[in-house]
Amino acid sequence: MKKKSSEDIVLEIKDKSELMVDLAYSSILYDNKIIAKEVYDLEDFIDNLFQIIQKDTLEDVKKGKLSIDSALTLMRLAQAGEEISDAAQEIADVELRDVELHPILKLSIRESDEVFTRIQVDEKSILCGKTLGNLKLSSETGMMIIAMRHKNRWLYGPNKNTRIDQDDILFAKGPEDGEKHLIELANGTSNEI
Amino acid sequence: MKKKSSEDIVLEIKDKSELMVDLAYSSILYDNKIIAKEVYDLEDFIDNLFQIIQKDTLEDVKKGKLSIDSALTLMRLAQAGEEISDAAQEIADVELRDVELHPILKLSIRESDEVFTRIQVDEKSILCGKTLGNLKLSSETGMMIIAMRHKNRWLYGPNKNTRIDQDDILFAKGPEDGEKHLIELANGTSNEI
Repeated sequence: MKKKSSEDIVLEIKDKSELMVDLAYSSILYDNKIIAKEVYDLEDFIDNLFQIIQKDTLEDVKKGKLSIDSALTLMRLAQAGEEISDAAQEIADVELRDVELHPILKLSIRESDEVFTRIQVDEKSILCGKTLGNLKLSSETGMMIIAMRHKNRWLYGPNKNTRIDQDDILFAKGPEDGEKHLIELANGTSNEI
Repeated sequence: MKKKSSEDIVLEIKDKSELMVDLAYSSILYDNKIIAKEVYDLEDFIDNLFQIIQKDTLEDVKKGKLSIDSALTLMRLAQAGEEISDAAQEIADVELRDVELHPILKLSIRESDEVFTRIQVDEKSILCGKTLGNLKLSSETGMMIIAMRHKNRWLYGPNKNTRIDQDDILFAKGPEDGEKHLIELANGTSNEI
């Protein structure tokens, strides 16, 4: 396997840490310990990436392949991502501590600039049997699928090859108008993507 | 003015800290010190909100208006947001330290799960003279406007009443397909929202 470049690792830390924040809020909103535990696992994964990038960066500086300035930038960006993932873990911790979120706070978080939603896909839905790449849900509805449950299997941060099937449960985030659109597509009352 | 509830403050910290991360990445991608400095100002603002919520929460616990568990949850969520805003400041710091981002790293960040973009609005664009609330850009294109420049005035985290005018510069974030759509709308080659 080709060794990942430092740039790839920084990007992976960035994307995963942001996904973790979204997953963590979803976990407390929908009282879902499985998602909260995934945030914990991802935190370990990010810690590991952070150690790799620190080592790689130092080695590259030593070999003269990387300037001190570039090394500092890479390390700083990686560290910022690592801190965001720590914050996500603290949010998930609220769910794992088994304290029911106050209804007003729940409502308040759900109604942030971007809303969180959880939707089950009906058998009549036009989404069934299509991949996220085909559907282009994020550009067509503004809703980004952050996690989904297919039977007993969970998928976090699905990609364009992920297929949606009947009865799947989608966890998504996006603008309020987009939520309405996605709900209609998922329950089969609209076929207009 | 009505005093903000703790729930409102937690929500404000959540939304602003996430906006800060997006602004910080935009600032380094587009080598924009004005946006980077805004991240610094917002960090002060968040620190202030964090102090308010700590004080309010303690007072409410003392008065018996808030359970220990609820207080811990509020404080923990506020703190997670505060940590995310610190991380955003570290990212903005990369821009303010005046180190040119390595082109490969720049490309890599731009091409994350959600792309960042900067677009100027042409006089022929259908966006001119319309508010974000009218346009519903985030649900129609998936692109969220995180900042915009109107003449010499900057606006961060615009809301539904914000109007887009000719020559405005939009800083947005969203899926790749959405970027293409927004560019076409902004440069006047497409009128289909």
